[in-house]
Amino acid sequence: MISRPPDNSRRLRVRELGVKIGPFATGPDNAITDVKGIKVGQVTLWKGEGKLVPGKGPVRTGVTAVLPHSGNLLSAPVEAGCHVFNGAGTTAGLSLLEEYGRIETPVLLTSTLAVGKAFDALVKYVVKKYIEKPEENSWFNPLVGETDDSFLNDSHGLHLRAEHVFQAIDTAEGGPVAEGVVGAGVGIRTCGFKAGIGTSSRIIAVGGRRFTVGSLIQSNFLGTLRVDGIPLGKELGVVAQMDDCPQGGSLMVITATDLPLNSRQLKRLAARGVLGMARTGAVGSHSSGDYFIAFSTTYRQENLASGEPFRKSEILLRDEYLTPVFAAAADAVEEAILNSIFKAVTVVGRDANRAEAIDIDKAIEVLNKYRQGSQS
Amino acid sequence: MISRPPDNSRRLRVRELGVKIGPFATGPDNAITDVKGIKVGQVTLWKGEGKLVPGKGPVRTGVTAVLPHSGNLLSAPVEAGCHVFNGAGTTAGLSLLEEYGRIETPVLLTSTLAVGKAFDALVKYVVKKYIEKPEENSWFNPLVGETDDSFLNDSHGLHLRAEHVFQAIDTAEGGPVAEGVVGAGVGIRTCGFKAGIGTSSRIIAVGGRRFTVGSLIQSNFLGTLRVDGIPLGKELGVVAQMDDCPQGGSLMVITATDLPLNSRQLKRLAARGVLGMARTGAVGSHSSGDYFIAFSTTYRQENLASGEPFRKSEILLRDEYLTPVFAAAADAVEEAILNSIFKAVTVVGRDANRAEAIDIDKAIEVLNKYRQGSQS
Amino acid sequence: MISRPPDNSRRLRVRELGVKIGPFATGPDNAITDVKGIKVGQVTLWKGEGKLVPGKGPVRTGVTAVLPHSGNLLSAPVEAGCHVFNGAGTTAGLSLLEEYGRIETPVLLTSTLAVGKAFDALVKYVVKKYIEKPEENSWFNPLVGETDDSFLNDSHGLHLRAEHVFQAIDTAEGGPVAEGVVGAGVGIRTCGFKAGIGTSSRIIAVGGRRFTVGSLIQSNFLGTLRVDGIPLGKELGVVAQMDDCPQGGSLMVITATDLPLNSRQLKRLAARGVLGMARTGAVGSHSSGDYFIAFSTTYRQENLASGEPFRKSEILLRDEYLTPVFAAAADAVEEAILNSIFKAVTVVGRDANRAEAIDIDKAIEVLNKYRQGSQS
Amino acid sequence: MISRPPDNSRRLRVRELGVKIGPFATGPDNAITDVKGIKVGQVTLWKGEGKLVPGKGPVRTGVTAVLPHSGNLLSAPVEAGCHVFNGAGTTAGLSLLEEYGRIETPVLLTSTLAVGKAFDALVKYVVKKYIEKPEENSWFNPLVGETDDSFLNDSHGLHLRAEHVFQAIDTAEGGPVAEGVVGAGVGIRTCGFKAGIGTSSRIIAVGGRRFTVGSLIQSNFLGTLRVDGIPLGKELGVVAQMDDCPQGGSLMVITATDLPLNSRQLKRLAARGVLGMARTGAVGSHSSGDYFIAFSTTYRQENLASGEPFRKSEILLRDEYLTPVFAAAADAVEEAILNSIFKAVTVVGRDANRAEAIDIDKAIEVLNKYRQGSQS
Repeated sequence: MISRPPDNSRRLRVRELGVKIGPFATGPDNAITDVKGIKVGQVTLWKGEGKLVPGKGPVRTGVTAVLPHSGNLLSAPVEAGCHVFNGAGTTAGLSLLEEYGRIETPVLLTSTLAVGKAFDALVKYVVKKYIEKPEENSWFNPLVGETDDSFLNDSHGLHLRAEHVFQAIDTAEGGPVAEGVVGAGVGIRTCGFKAGIGTSSRIIAVGGRRFTVGSLIQSNFLGTLRVDGIPLGKELGVVAQMDDCPQGGSLMVITATDLPLNSRQLKRLAARGVLGMARTGAVGSHSSGDYFIAFSTTYRQENLASGEPFRKSEILLRDEYLTPVFAAAADAVEEAILNSIFKAVTVVGRDANRAEAIDIDKAIEVLNKYRQGSQS
Repeated sequence: MISRPPDNSRRLRVRELGVKIGPFATGPDNAITDVKGIKVGQVTLWKGEGKLVPGKGPVRTGVTAVLPHSGNLLSAPVEAGCHVFNGAGTTAGLSLLEEYGRIETPVLLTSTLAVGKAFDALVKYVVKKYIEKPEENSWFNPLVGETDDSFLNDSHGLHLRAEHVFQAIDTAEGGPVAEGVVGAGVGIRTCGFKAGIGTSSRIIAVGGRRFTVGSLIQSNFLGTLRVDGIPLGKELGVVAQMDDCPQGGSLMVITATDLPLNSRQLKRLAARGVLGMARTGAVGSHSSGDYFIAFSTTYRQENLASGEPFRKSEILLRDEYLTPVFAAAADAVEEAILNSIFKAVTVVGRDANRAEAIDIDKAIEVLNKYRQGSQS
Repeated sequence: MISRPPDNSRRLRVRELGVKIGPFATGPDNAITDVKGIKVGQVTLWKGEGKLVPGKGPVRTGVTAVLPHSGNLLSAPVEAGCHVFNGAGTTAGLSLLEEYGRIETPVLLTSTLAVGKAFDALVKYVVKKYIEKPEENSWFNPLVGETDDSFLNDSHGLHLRAEHVFQAIDTAEGGPVAEGVVGAGVGIRTCGFKAGIGTSSRIIAVGGRRFTVGSLIQSNFLGTLRVDGIPLGKELGVVAQMDDCPQGGSLMVITATDLPLNSRQLKRLAARGVLGMARTGAVGSHSSGDYFIAFSTTYRQENLASGEPFRKSEILLRDEYLTPVFAAAADAVEEAILNSIFKAVTVVGRDANRAEAIDIDKAIEVLNKYRQGSQS
Repeated sequence: MISRPPDNSRRLRVRELGVKIGPFATGPDNAITDVKGIKVGQVTLWKGEGKLVPGKGPVRTGVTAVLPHSGNLLSAPVEAGCHVFNGAGTTAGLSLLEEYGRIETPVLLTSTLAVGKAFDALVKYVVKKYIEKPEENSWFNPLVGETDDSFLNDSHGLHLRAEHVFQAIDTAEGGPVAEGVVGAGVGIRTCGFKAGIGTSSRIIAVGGRRFTVGSLIQSNFLGTLRVDGIPLGKELGVVAQMDDCPQGGSLMVITATDLPLNSRQLKRLAARGVLGMARTGAVGSHSSGDYFIAFSTTYRQENLASGEPFRKSEILLRDEYLTPVFAAAADAVEEAILNSIFKAVTVVGRDANRAEAIDIDKAIEVLNKYRQGSQS
């Protein structure tokens, strides 16, 4: 049932359209994987056409795994924080993340109702891969985010299986990240267009050294699209309806950095993703579960088995230096959302429901029109 | 694999020992089910003895389901609030509960790492039982609490299956509630003694009318037991060790009332469970995930399909009248925790790990000694 | 020392420049006072020029009072909620607002370090105006927001006095609201321009009835200005510097509505102000205390002295209908921020520090250039 | 108007009655000042008798100042966290404490409605004592806690003046701390008895080294007193009434330690004070503002003027070692509350309202009766 993602090789990332969000340079792959050590793996599930038959399909879903590092995350968790802008979702694992300030498993993104399956698979994975002496280990905290793909997918049919999760984790790698209709992004929409997974990164200088901030997002929210301020959605006639009771959406954001930040600072960093979301045109709808997670790859909690009560935390960024980091994170989230739209192809799902890809040619036309205006 | 819970018919609830927590009378069954309409169902999983073989056993776990009412909870959710005293756990479903102020599925309690399985089963249950037109329904929020039973149970083996969850929900009923080593309480300990599920209720008068507050708890925390203030743990030589880095625990509390309270008030009500927990001797340990959920059976959100934008909320208790309600909730939680201990029988689990039941005869001896003192 | 605000009669609100934020119509005065019953009063403090002599001046500060209604707010508080995006400030009164879900005094905005003085004056006002039997009343919760005006003002000199607060409250009125360099807006800047107080409103239809959402803001944050997406700051060469450790800022938002919303819903409504802030170009800087308060004028808690334990809450909007309300609130905040900038005149303050008003002619030029582009 | 506190030299701390709360030893003075470097200063305001005449008196109030260290707290703030169990109060300064994770002024406790005056005085103090170049400093965050003393005090009369605050800070010292009717404790009651300020400390061993946890509390809450579990309130016939709508209360807790803990850990530590509060008999009443602040004297943020973006954090306690620290903090809070009651003398205040001191002889009788029982 695992299919390759639809071919989107001819679609462009927004930077290829000349769009530059914010003043900072991007990392080499303009991806969360520009933060050294991070790997991303994705499995796309795609099967069937036509009428929804719960349990049968059509299947338009998947899973995306983000690995903060390649080692044993349970014995070497990463420092983390989170911000919930709108808790309208089923994301699992946030209360420990906040209480302990850490992430101790790979981070999964998937379909809203498949969180249980992903959680369960993550337990199996951790038990098998991370735990040597089961009698000495008790429990840990699986972290699973989600957005609802039921417009296209047989989400009630729960087609995600443990093997898909294992595959996503096992095939995770650094370098460029597939965007659009892939992994957890298969069945979702944003601002009226087909969307999915997107990523972006920024390089910032602090104290004469270079650091990276990168985001990977799963984008599914209601809004009227803006690209670097340009009202593209309105120009293309794709506008969020405000009649009746419009629903929809959700946004999952994972932001990573190699700056030494602690959980309090990472909570603050995570929150800046809301700014990026807002700038792309989100209306903040009632049912959009907007969750923002951030972690540091360098301010790590040491091996729990060390037996040493005191943790040596060599360095930590002072809060007074956070503003550019915050700005960079907001920009990375904004661009990652745009990428999730521009890289997504049209998908027809259950009951012939159709999520149309944004028309890149028309988009370029509009963008150029505004640019010419601005340069006249 | 489903066994009956060990016979605890000869064990006594604390009230049968003459212990009265607080000034309020209890409901007829001194149980959460005294709040009209609430049902509880429990399935106990028990298999094997001896050495831990992950995936094989021994199995000492289960699931407890609390149904706020017997109807369709998705179309008629109950107003709810929650308080997280210590987020060291994997409890799922709290962010929507807080954001929307409601519970829309049965509430499950189980083993920490089995939350994914329980979530998944709850999805299947809701899809099958609550949803008529799958193409019109998208997603909902399964609510699953947990404590870690790995001291006795092969928790890594994930023995809970969907059929167990269905059975717990389908067999739920009003009236007396099984306590101690049953359902989600099979594999857990509190204050050094075998514990498990416990429940209690209180009757309060507001404005000349009688209302009920009831709690059901899953008790697994570190502490030195006190019974109505009497240092029973110390007297019995069962004391929380403070050397090295003691861990352990968690407490899940579900508090219900037929008073008309909204989510903000229910969040406040939920928090009062911390007081009850504290009085039984909890030390507030690092790894004790202490979660408190509260709901009202009368201040209900109407049927979502009504099409009417305005909800008629006939009455709502004014905050100025909450103090006795808060006090009653704290007392009910305190007594429910004590019941979870006194009704629990000794259990031998994986690797011959043994959780000893409290010795009721010795406990009575100590209680009487203190009472005689107090009456001399 | 109380001076009239600098004349800004020749400055324009953004709507007069042809800028329309979002799809909803504004209320008659495009102000928070479009929500029936709300009054706003402002006192501007302005004295001296030149070098900062703490305690002497120069004085560039003031106070803005928002009255949710004209009656006794202590006996008839309004339902309220709040959202703190960045708690980098000294705003007082939020914990009770959140716990009780209500506002029970006029809401004041002033200079960061003057919060104590404003709090104290508010106590005196409430004691004198609202309390008949002091022996029966104990305490209440003054609500005071702030942003830092120390770039222009002798903020350490604490020039606000109780009489200024009384005057602001006593002269509060409905109808058009003075914007820009007035009241709490005298000494502040946003996105590199002189800013201050701003307001805006939106009309929304729910269930066939018309309701109003209005915001009043005190705007002082770091960013690069965008007007309806157009990068005006960049075009004018006024860009947030990201070198070193840029600080600055804060944003106080008060959003009001005559829709019947409870505290949980108002908390959600308040949060949508972050979206409006983001769209105007805020970078989310470290030291920007961004506080968002929302209240309903119709879902009121009844008179506390009624002696009746149950509150009758006739109607309440269902959450499923909130999306347009959320969108309208975000738009109102966005436009209110823009108004705070466009209505502000240049101010020279302490140590000849200068906050330059945005050049309206040049702004129009840029806006027109983009519009022509978009229409070509 | 500043009087000396009523003589309580003949009253006893609970430890002098043979009461030992928990397993840990106390520090040399059994006070928050056992944490090296901490100083406490208190000013008692006492004037007049008889009928309440707002603005005239009678005055029964005061201020208590806790200095985390004797240096410049603005340039060398201490790491801090807080927990709000019940936000029914006017405590100022918590949002920045949480956002920045630090305290940057002395911590004041006073009367609820005097928070504005205390805030204002604190601003003046910091401006005068900590800031050399006013033109380079902008704002900071005064931290002021409170409980309501209006039963005895002319709280509406606002008798606290800046000079009282300065005196409290300037006379602060290490060593034994005055308890009971002193400073911010003059006008308050707990569990039906006169109460006030109390303090206690614990010594804990971590990794072979000794550390101290100390608490200072301002105690004013509703409950039925328990002393180490013994129902002393009930035995003495002083029981919290649950009829009608009982109000009352509040508890302010300041917990300090020389263990290296960061803001996240200190937030967790602060929360454990709820356990201590619960064990003394608090009912968790509606209007009891229960605020818990914690700080570390050793995990300090460095001088902000250093110009170095990275902070060196030499060591930090690992969370796995927190349980004994948590237990010790709960015990210290419990004992501090008891001390606040046992050290308090009877006070007659406004309108001849009388708050009776607990009868120590009768208390000893009850305690002995229970002890004999327990030893029989």
